[in-house]
Amino acid sequence: MIARLGLIGVGLIGGSLAAALREADYVGEVVGYGRSLGNLEDATRLGLIDAALPSPEAVARAADIVVIAVPVGSVGTSLAQIADAIAPNTIVTDVGSVKLGVVDAAREVLPANFRRFVGGHPIAGTERSGAVAARADLFRGRRVVLTPDDDTDADAIAQVQAMWHATGAEVVQMPAAEHDRILAASSHLPHALAYALVDMLVRMDEHRAIFDCAAGGFRDFTRIAASDPTMWRDIFIANAGHVVALLRQYQDEIETLAQAIERGDTQWLVETLARAKHARDALDKK
Amino acid sequence: MIARLGLIGVGLIGGSLAAALREADYVGEVVGYGRSLGNLEDATRLGLIDAALPSPEAVARAADIVVIAVPVGSVGTSLAQIADAIAPNTIVTDVGSVKLGVVDAAREVLPANFRRFVGGHPIAGTERSGAVAARADLFRGRRVVLTPDDDTDADAIAQVQAMWHATGAEVVQMPAAEHDRILAASSHLPHALAYALVDMLVRMDEHRAIFDCAAGGFRDFTRIAASDPTMWRDIFIANAGHVVALLRQYQDEIETLAQAIERGDTQWLVETLARAKHARDALDKK
Repeated sequence: MIARLGLIGVGLIGGSLAAALREADYVGEVVGYGRSLGNLEDATRLGLIDAALPSPEAVARAADIVVIAVPVGSVGTSLAQIADAIAPNTIVTDVGSVKLGVVDAAREVLPANFRRFVGGHPIAGTERSGAVAARADLFRGRRVVLTPDDDTDADAIAQVQAMWHATGAEVVQMPAAEHDRILAASSHLPHALAYALVDMLVRMDEHRAIFDCAAGGFRDFTRIAASDPTMWRDIFIANAGHVVALLRQYQDEIETLAQAIERGDTQWLVETLARAKHARDALDKK
Repeated sequence: MIARLGLIGVGLIGGSLAAALREADYVGEVVGYGRSLGNLEDATRLGLIDAALPSPEAVARAADIVVIAVPVGSVGTSLAQIADAIAPNTIVTDVGSVKLGVVDAAREVLPANFRRFVGGHPIAGTERSGAVAARADLFRGRRVVLTPDDDTDADAIAQVQAMWHATGAEVVQMPAAEHDRILAASSHLPHALAYALVDMLVRMDEHRAIFDCAAGGFRDFTRIAASDPTMWRDIFIANAGHVVALLRQYQDEIETLAQAIERGDTQWLVETLARAKHARDALDKK
């Protein structure tokens, strides 16, 4: 049970966390800060937060657990803003999709609280954003990765883990560097590819006819290109090394495919497509 | 109303067409041929066809409209098989995802019937296949492209169009070459990219961790990689020119994206991602 939860950022993720914890009766009061007044008003009207506070510092002073739920490029700024306000025992966590930079920033700007900082990443979301998109069931059955450091207090880890368990999520731990490498492949690369495809097609002369001939497969494939541009700009830059390396590897992959199609290599094609189908089918059986 | 519909191939598309026409009371009898006896038994058991016939020729002799619903690489073979059996007035159409080669094959092997041949492509499907996956509502609200030639009988076009209207589809006409160019972008390229991504990831050392960390976005993005490998091998080869050109263009596109991420070009990134999001949002509003 969390007496006072403080949210810095009350968008899809922060708002859904508040909604889930309220539904589970796992939180007393929720206070929040956000840069957009309109969004904070939505969050208050929807009952996601009890009070909108005027600054990150005010949230840090008021809360037992502070959850930083802003685009990953702004987490460092939020950490710096709360550094002087926060009590030594207050737990701080975040929800950023890239973790190594966040953990490094916490070590640097929150030295007194670093043992109480637990990097976190709920692998959940939709292409929608803002408090109005919040859903109490967003994390149910989803995975949350925590990336504690060797120095992190066991008690802080346990409390953050318990918070996410209360939302119905499964919680795993891994080093921040490993998280960033894995998520580059399972999430950041697919988003980059979807954005690149839609942008390429929309700039074609025949883009109207192309989108008119889009079926369900195209819609599924490109859905993630409707995700929040600021959030994804931040993620690509924060995880640039892995994302760029995978984009280059993928260029080679599709060159190999293009050459197989060019030479009409039916055997290579059917083997490769069947291997991919097999792997994708296995994912649905999970 | 079609008195006797003949299906060569009773898979997802052929089976769904039969189911939809029965539901609309638009067909008297449905006869079918397929290479897989097990699938034909499924189709009979599910009431999709009234009789399984032993050869494409038998179907051609029995039907008023023959629908060739086999993977696009086999349409030419099916056309050749029925060439000697078919009456001059019988209408022949197909459902192949690539049209220029099919229309050329029909002109060559069915000279006496070419005016009664109407190339067709229902832009619908799922990643599932076979008669057991057939659904009467598969084409409802979907688009069917017909690619008649200058010589095609207006009556044959009208009958094929009426058949698809009965399934609830919207029917449009365009030249076969234009169809193949448009569909390469809206369908064939996305499928190639999804297969290539899943195949690249599954060959990585950390593929278990990557698939374990896959969220809804990854599932949506890769769903089409579970499509039938034989069908897609045929499509890629039948439309090789366009597909390969687009794969190369896409390589350039993601190189541009990789370079923007490398140099940390936040403005370029947010503009590009926002443009893609805008285009993708517009698709959902249709």
